[in-house]
Amino acid sequence: MAVTIKAGIVGGAGYAGGELLRLLLLHPNVELLFVQSRSQAGKPVYAVHPDLLGETEMLFSADVAIPVDVLFLCAGHGEAAKFLAENEISAETKIIDLSQDFRWNEHTTSDVVEAGDRSFVYGLPELQREQIQQAQHIANPGCFATGIQLALLPLAKQNLLNAEVHVSGITGSTGAGQSLSATSHFSWRTENVSTYKVMEHQHLREIKRSLLYLQAEGQPDIHFIPYRGPFARGIFITAYLQSDLSLEEAQALYKDYYKGHPFTLVTDQNPDLKQVVNTNKCVLYLQKHGNMLVITSLIDNLLKGAAGQAVQNMNLVFGLDETTGLKLKAAAF
Amino acid sequence: MAVTIKAGIVGGAGYAGGELLRLLLLHPNVELLFVQSRSQAGKPVYAVHPDLLGETEMLFSADVAIPVDVLFLCAGHGEAAKFLAENEISAETKIIDLSQDFRWNEHTTSDVVEAGDRSFVYGLPELQREQIQQAQHIANPGCFATGIQLALLPLAKQNLLNAEVHVSGITGSTGAGQSLSATSHFSWRTENVSTYKVMEHQHLREIKRSLLYLQAEGQPDIHFIPYRGPFARGIFITAYLQSDLSLEEAQALYKDYYKGHPFTLVTDQNPDLKQVVNTNKCVLYLQKHGNMLVITSLIDNLLKGAAGQAVQNMNLVFGLDETTGLKLKAAAF
Amino acid sequence: MAVTIKAGIVGGAGYAGGELLRLLLLHPNVELLFVQSRSQAGKPVYAVHPDLLGETEMLFSADVAIPVDVLFLCAGHGEAAKFLAENEISAETKIIDLSQDFRWNEHTTSDVVEAGDRSFVYGLPELQREQIQQAQHIANPGCFATGIQLALLPLAKQNLLNAEVHVSGITGSTGAGQSLSATSHFSWRTENVSTYKVMEHQHLREIKRSLLYLQAEGQPDIHFIPYRGPFARGIFITAYLQSDLSLEEAQALYKDYYKGHPFTLVTDQNPDLKQVVNTNKCVLYLQKHGNMLVITSLIDNLLKGAAGQAVQNMNLVFGLDETTGLKLKAAAF
Amino acid sequence: MAVTIKAGIVGGAGYAGGELLRLLLLHPNVELLFVQSRSQAGKPVYAVHPDLLGETEMLFSADVAIPVDVLFLCAGHGEAAKFLAENEISAETKIIDLSQDFRWNEHTTSDVVEAGDRSFVYGLPELQREQIQQAQHIANPGCFATGIQLALLPLAKQNLLNAEVHVSGITGSTGAGQSLSATSHFSWRTENVSTYKVMEHQHLREIKRSLLYLQAEGQPDIHFIPYRGPFARGIFITAYLQSDLSLEEAQALYKDYYKGHPFTLVTDQNPDLKQVVNTNKCVLYLQKHGNMLVITSLIDNLLKGAAGQAVQNMNLVFGLDETTGLKLKAAAF
Repeated sequence: MAVTIKAGIVGGAGYAGGELLRLLLLHPNVELLFVQSRSQAGKPVYAVHPDLLGETEMLFSADVAIPVDVLFLCAGHGEAAKFLAENEISAETKIIDLSQDFRWNEHTTSDVVEAGDRSFVYGLPELQREQIQQAQHIANPGCFATGIQLALLPLAKQNLLNAEVHVSGITGSTGAGQSLSATSHFSWRTENVSTYKVMEHQHLREIKRSLLYLQAEGQPDIHFIPYRGPFARGIFITAYLQSDLSLEEAQALYKDYYKGHPFTLVTDQNPDLKQVVNTNKCVLYLQKHGNMLVITSLIDNLLKGAAGQAVQNMNLVFGLDETTGLKLKAAAF
Repeated sequence: MAVTIKAGIVGGAGYAGGELLRLLLLHPNVELLFVQSRSQAGKPVYAVHPDLLGETEMLFSADVAIPVDVLFLCAGHGEAAKFLAENEISAETKIIDLSQDFRWNEHTTSDVVEAGDRSFVYGLPELQREQIQQAQHIANPGCFATGIQLALLPLAKQNLLNAEVHVSGITGSTGAGQSLSATSHFSWRTENVSTYKVMEHQHLREIKRSLLYLQAEGQPDIHFIPYRGPFARGIFITAYLQSDLSLEEAQALYKDYYKGHPFTLVTDQNPDLKQVVNTNKCVLYLQKHGNMLVITSLIDNLLKGAAGQAVQNMNLVFGLDETTGLKLKAAAF
Repeated sequence: MAVTIKAGIVGGAGYAGGELLRLLLLHPNVELLFVQSRSQAGKPVYAVHPDLLGETEMLFSADVAIPVDVLFLCAGHGEAAKFLAENEISAETKIIDLSQDFRWNEHTTSDVVEAGDRSFVYGLPELQREQIQQAQHIANPGCFATGIQLALLPLAKQNLLNAEVHVSGITGSTGAGQSLSATSHFSWRTENVSTYKVMEHQHLREIKRSLLYLQAEGQPDIHFIPYRGPFARGIFITAYLQSDLSLEEAQALYKDYYKGHPFTLVTDQNPDLKQVVNTNKCVLYLQKHGNMLVITSLIDNLLKGAAGQAVQNMNLVFGLDETTGLKLKAAAF
Repeated sequence: MAVTIKAGIVGGAGYAGGELLRLLLLHPNVELLFVQSRSQAGKPVYAVHPDLLGETEMLFSADVAIPVDVLFLCAGHGEAAKFLAENEISAETKIIDLSQDFRWNEHTTSDVVEAGDRSFVYGLPELQREQIQQAQHIANPGCFATGIQLALLPLAKQNLLNAEVHVSGITGSTGAGQSLSATSHFSWRTENVSTYKVMEHQHLREIKRSLLYLQAEGQPDIHFIPYRGPFARGIFITAYLQSDLSLEEAQALYKDYYKGHPFTLVTDQNPDLKQVVNTNKCVLYLQKHGNMLVITSLIDNLLKGAAGQAVQNMNLVFGLDETTGLKLKAAAF
């Protein structure tokens, strides 16, 4: 008998909320009961996300009164914690939060993050799928954090993350959300490149904690140059470190680590970002140059880096096949 | 009991072939038996369409020997007719051709285009769904032709296409296929605009025939300015003509015409192209300015304008729900 | 002896103000005495226009107290009139206003627009260069207005504008200025197309007045579809109308009309937008299809459509060669 | 009395040749006598570079028979050496070659590269302006090579380049020239990112030689990740290394090194690529994060990275002010 999961979204007017809507409306086991938005309450969902015209007649709701099996929080950093403090949510309701409020970080000593009566499991399926399957509350990872971790987990698992790691990564504009700013203005951003939060990106905090989870000792520094690129979707990451592994050994290690993980793929062909855009995939590519192991990692920041991974986590939490509702046609162009 | 349609693709290495692959691999009622490509025979499909990594291990085949229920021809203009002349295809096999070789045009006097033993029905479901459901062979419409016809069909149906029609339309680069040319070079095309085939676009021929099909008399000239735009996917069309209809009457007429057609939607909100990108939708928007009725029509040229419509036609031919395998997550960004 | 023109800019922090700065700092006959900006007063000019790093150490000023020979107003629509009402500007100072506040329109019966003690000449050199040379105050034309007029002036001059004119035009994002809005957000605009102010663009008002100036009788309607395109700079316009002229006659007419005008060129080769980007040129291209004369017109909206034309007007007002400081290297890519 | 330099271009139909044309036609001290192109001989220059319509009536020539003071070679890698071998060029003629044929590399032991009777000086003015001023033949540096060297020269000069250097850089599509290829196709490249020649870019060879020129001992490895970005013009480079310098010391060091160099500027504000596009500038920005010194370096690949630097070198060779003809209006958008 088919499972039906009753779901609600908090903060459905933003980019991540919109992607969740697109996914959940097509998900065969989900019945979406409400989409809350303070700014858009009362308007049809398609007035804000016009591609949903014809998909749903739902209106944004002002509140979250209807009981659901799972509540997705797309309220934004700081707002998620505030939301849970201010709203009475049934202890039965599973929560998947897309903000950084409940993610672990380098100071977290436990395997979960406690918040009042709730404890949040860090929701990276390729790191701890079993824990997610048992979890009641999930902290969905950040986008850069997802891409960088997937590039490094197999090494950490084997205690091979033993040299400084150098990372550069380029993100599309949707990574910065829909708020208007000088660096999101089209006239500025088109055909332009810049850097931000050089060496100090906040996602390094959750990355470090996850790597420590796999490799308890001897972790080296991670140096990270984040770039803003002139495109809307996707993250392209390159990481390298000194390694004694041959290319073949490294490929075997990565393919073995990700064997049972349907969305993370190791390619033998120099990849480009658009092969993951509008999918929940992470594509990894390995090169060896001298003693440097170079790992390329690509994701769609709004899917594997946000809403897609949230649905993947929901599938795991509710015992569904991990890929349900996530077999997406790539945009390709 | 679930239907399973055995399908093959001829010319699977190009843009339309790639989109067909993406759709058919996810289609619940299709078993894809081969993907032929002269230029890529023997290579894995994902070597050419790298977003299909992990989706299939199929190789491009050199020939089309395996019997199938439906054969999609993505061979290109002129090549489709040549292919059918040179290959023995079972009379049982249904054929959906994406080239212009078997489309009707202003000189066609019959309702079908005869080609040897075969007769091809023009495959625009919003024009003649019943004929398609009965058809053995389908000539899939052109991309601009689809967008412009959907903007005009309701008027023709009521014999209201009685004034000169002025059309401008902007197409993305995938409309020109994957062959390399000066106008497909990124350095040239990015941030650039140009026109081509002004007043003489070949799609006018099939458009005229379809309009004549609905409105036998008094058809006015259609003036068409096609633009090349600096983007990859989609067609944005604006058509206008003098009309006595009020805005409300026109909206009622269009909504009524497209009532049973799941992919063609009339919006009340000024639309933008990306709301149809990576979907099989056509979105129409009506305005009235003075005595001018202005119709905006948006499609994704590779989906509703090519591979998506081909699958829609397949669904109709095989008695499936028209939307099967075509409920796609919009790219949105 | 070299002329030195003392100049000031009001509203120097916006797009048009920035372009004026770029031009005036390189102009051999201009000494720029101040650049006023309410929002940025006290900051270095290069803090707002970072490409000017190394070009000038000027700071934005809060006021306009220093006497100058010419004052450029880039204050914005409505703000220019307010500025002149609130500030005491010497009667000696020539004024070139880039807003629409002092442009003529279809209701203007005089050849100039009176505003208090000042009378403004419409500053399109290809329309009335002699009047500009004698003018004290100039109303600089709008960007779409410039491109459309240059496409039609030669016909009006010969009383040949005697059939309905159909215009479509695509503008880059800088045409909408630097204010942040949903349609200027990169995530939205990249790879996107939309229309706005369909049939009702405000520039039609000044266009009609200019055409009437040349052709007193029998002017037909102009129907105009403005598109927003996914690029930053430039306007691409296509206009067509029924005409008895042969292509050769039309080409001769246009080449003759623009003979002495250094920036407006008639090409024999199908053009693309980027050949005028970062120049003060207008490129025109003529085609004849059946009885339709099709005119393509390209400009850079910030140069020939704004700041470049303002400098061209300054050159004329001060008796300099029209091209002084305007021989610009095209960006080309 | 004004100098007039008689100039010729070999290979004027490509991207670098086109930029040289744009610059030389506006240069106050240059008379351009011919522009040779094998593929386009006989055609007007503006037929290939349409932005030059109205700038010149020159035709591409098949040969290079006319004596000139300076000959620019834009023939391409390998073709420049072949050209000089096959053509009799007067010993009086100064040669500026834009290919890599005569650039020094890590194996060069002399300060010049000998080629038959000629000896080529490496043409990076910020490295050896005096030698360029005395040179007869110049090997113009590569684009990435220029940007990376300008990021590192001040450190090498002080023997402070004593830790491994980590470089990532993103290049626009014009860096790959105008030949058609899969990665230059608009449909592929728009909104896309990829890497190429990871750790093995050929420009590392000339970079190493230059650094050795300044710092004879103890040079560390340079690790370089080159990215292809979805834009046409420009290179954005980030380099970092461990350094004991404080931020203030590093800024002082860089400002001091580049004091007399008009095109290389040190900014105090986080920069973006477009502030150098369509200029001959290099903008440098320094940050200190922990013990890492991070240097950002921006150039326009076709100007400071190719044709602009070639003109800068010509100015030096002929005793002109270095900036003559190179004070360009930035595109800015």
